[in-house]
Amino acid sequence: MRMYDLIMKKRDGNALTDAEIEYIVKGFVSGEVPDYQMSAFLMAVFYKGMNDREILTLTKVMAESGDMVDLSSIDGVKADKHSTGGVGDKTSLIVAPIVAANGVKVAKMSGRGLGHTGGTVDKLESIPGYRTDLTEKEFLDVVRKTGISVIGQSANLTPADKKMYALRDVTATIDSIPLIASSIMSKKIAAGSDCILLDVKVGSGAFMKNTEDALKLAEVMVTLGENAGRKTRAMITDMDTPLGYAIGNSLEVIESVNTLKGKGPEDLTHECIELSANLMVLGGLGNEDECKRLARKAIDDGSALKRLISMVEAQGGDSSVIKDTENFAKAAFTYDVISPSDGYVTSMDAAGCGIASSMLGAGRETLDSRIDHTAGMILRKKTGDRVAAGDVLTTLYANDESLFKAAADRYMEAVSIGKERKERNPLLYALVSKDKVIRYDK
Amino acid sequence: MRMYDLIMKKRDGNALTDAEIEYIVKGFVSGEVPDYQMSAFLMAVFYKGMNDREILTLTKVMAESGDMVDLSSIDGVKADKHSTGGVGDKTSLIVAPIVAANGVKVAKMSGRGLGHTGGTVDKLESIPGYRTDLTEKEFLDVVRKTGISVIGQSANLTPADKKMYALRDVTATIDSIPLIASSIMSKKIAAGSDCILLDVKVGSGAFMKNTEDALKLAEVMVTLGENAGRKTRAMITDMDTPLGYAIGNSLEVIESVNTLKGKGPEDLTHECIELSANLMVLGGLGNEDECKRLARKAIDDGSALKRLISMVEAQGGDSSVIKDTENFAKAAFTYDVISPSDGYVTSMDAAGCGIASSMLGAGRETLDSRIDHTAGMILRKKTGDRVAAGDVLTTLYANDESLFKAAADRYMEAVSIGKERKERNPLLYALVSKDKVIRYDK
Repeated sequence: MRMYDLIMKKRDGNALTDAEIEYIVKGFVSGEVPDYQMSAFLMAVFYKGMNDREILTLTKVMAESGDMVDLSSIDGVKADKHSTGGVGDKTSLIVAPIVAANGVKVAKMSGRGLGHTGGTVDKLESIPGYRTDLTEKEFLDVVRKTGISVIGQSANLTPADKKMYALRDVTATIDSIPLIASSIMSKKIAAGSDCILLDVKVGSGAFMKNTEDALKLAEVMVTLGENAGRKTRAMITDMDTPLGYAIGNSLEVIESVNTLKGKGPEDLTHECIELSANLMVLGGLGNEDECKRLARKAIDDGSALKRLISMVEAQGGDSSVIKDTENFAKAAFTYDVISPSDGYVTSMDAAGCGIASSMLGAGRETLDSRIDHTAGMILRKKTGDRVAAGDVLTTLYANDESLFKAAADRYMEAVSIGKERKERNPLLYALVSKDKVIRYDK
Repeated sequence: MRMYDLIMKKRDGNALTDAEIEYIVKGFVSGEVPDYQMSAFLMAVFYKGMNDREILTLTKVMAESGDMVDLSSIDGVKADKHSTGGVGDKTSLIVAPIVAANGVKVAKMSGRGLGHTGGTVDKLESIPGYRTDLTEKEFLDVVRKTGISVIGQSANLTPADKKMYALRDVTATIDSIPLIASSIMSKKIAAGSDCILLDVKVGSGAFMKNTEDALKLAEVMVTLGENAGRKTRAMITDMDTPLGYAIGNSLEVIESVNTLKGKGPEDLTHECIELSANLMVLGGLGNEDECKRLARKAIDDGSALKRLISMVEAQGGDSSVIKDTENFAKAAFTYDVISPSDGYVTSMDAAGCGIASSMLGAGRETLDSRIDHTAGMILRKKTGDRVAAGDVLTTLYANDESLFKAAADRYMEAVSIGKERKERNPLLYALVSKDKVIRYDK
């Protein structure tokens, strides 16, 4: 087998055999297939796609390229959740405790943020002492003890994906459905859970810019999960507007805690109930309506918050910041961005808000950048809200005052104020499960 | 400027600015743009193409990436010729002396063969002592003295093309019209001649598999040459069947010498007269008919052969092999491939004949392979010829008898014998000049 011939085969739109896909992935990981051939191949995949069988094989080979986490020593159903990434998306911090409070075990490996999107691991690390780098044994122990653990990806999880993603990231081959689907699902399959809930974001702040592409990606991923013997569902949710009001690491943990206390923003609370319910359906706790009730109850009776506190304590974190979020370290400076005119917020580009937040220190440009956990912003107005000239649109948080000017300008580029009131997009577009697709938007 | 953004821009089908193209080529040559980004970019060009202005700029930047040969110290019109490569294509060895005998100076840099196609430099090196590695001063001196010199490419001619071609060759991005055109024309423009005749081969043994693609390539290249101030024409010629009867280095030189003595195969002689005449038209010697007469005269009166001998002697070669081709070294073994049945040769895949010849030692797999100058084959029958069972179809030449079996099998795969006589394709399909395209096949 020669990589040259396989590039040409895909270039000309032909399907590769399973053995050929295995050759490519293994060869790339071992270094036998050089970067420059892999990047030409990935660009050919970008244009010519892959059929269902090719994607399935690619995902399987990628999943098996490193450690496969074995959760069988943990009793009961184990659940995982993945978001394709958004701005202000702190749902994992809320959904995982709700689900765990209802008896479904959560053993979750999360990623770090990059570019304008945040990552769950970064958010958790704003809790003093919280360890995201548990050994596999520690990880399993925490799940057994508290029913929930969220850590960073172990070093040898899907090395093929790590190497391929790094190459895609510099060769403009990220936004390809077969490559996104196999990247996400290889990690989820290797991470070992029985049930997987996927949150596919769509809109200006997400990879997927329209619902049709998001649906296609969701359907491919659900099929991949089910084929690997995992119960899998995907929700298509809005990311045109940031979720909730807080963007930035400790700011988002605070908003999550408030949500678990029943005092969260309406959009965030609603979406977390839906996500939790669907994951609990996969976990066998009942139908959608029953699971929604159970989810809401776990907020109302404080059991979900209690789970979060148990996990934080089990992973070395200082739970006093959860019990009273006033104990969180605060940014040294704040800066109010003021509305220049009367009217309504007619749109709010999520990516722009994420970039502005990142400029304050909340995000990273490259994987090596350091994050300021206290930086970010609290939105005061969102799409659909009425504003008067002089109103505070958002409050920026940073430890370096010189960052405010550029971040405020970038934020104002992202916001439009008009005379006519415009409704915000719906939060939920669709639910994709093995045997059906439900569109909420049609 | 970031290479990532330029890959994405081309990936999405947008035209690059001149500055962007310059950044890419210069960055790749300097090493600032890594191979893996360049190969992704080249694959995007393969799918999305380039507009005329982009190709023009790419060619110019590539031509200027290394030495620009200055032929201004040589009096008169300087002419160059290029073939896109074929099997049995020894036309340069015949056309260059004919043109030089008529007073148009030939200062030509040629390439080596690769894969199933031969290269003029390899053929010339089968002449004992012939130096293809003259310094620029020696090269100019030979042209001044004899009116003709054919050498290998100088080391620093179009380094951008060398590096890009090497990458394309391993990433399945060779067959792209913008990339082929810029590769060929950057070299021709850097090599400094006033007139350029392009022989664009079409058929099974050529890059271009159909006349429409060949015409498109020819038109792009003629525009590139004219835009660079060079008089440029292109002929589209057949490469479904090998040209002449000889394939292999010294075997092809012998056939070329015979052609210059007026005893060459009809197809080869005819094509060389046409190519020579068109180059002489560009050189200002008259119209097509006048130049054909002049070309034929240079064969008939021996003046073209005399030019070849002068060049060989001026470049250190042993001209006794030209004066009497019996003096050429011969392969130690020959092997006759016999027709298994009665009928007609209905097709003869040129690429297959080239590969079989290469297997005998006449070609190289990689640029580092060594060539056996005496190896190859002499075809005894060609498309359209009648054969009886037991007739010799071709005679193979090698210095290792063990190579015959596999090469004979590969050759037989390339040949079809049928009951119905089939005419061979016409030799000439079209002539492309600045202001007109003449189709001979319509």
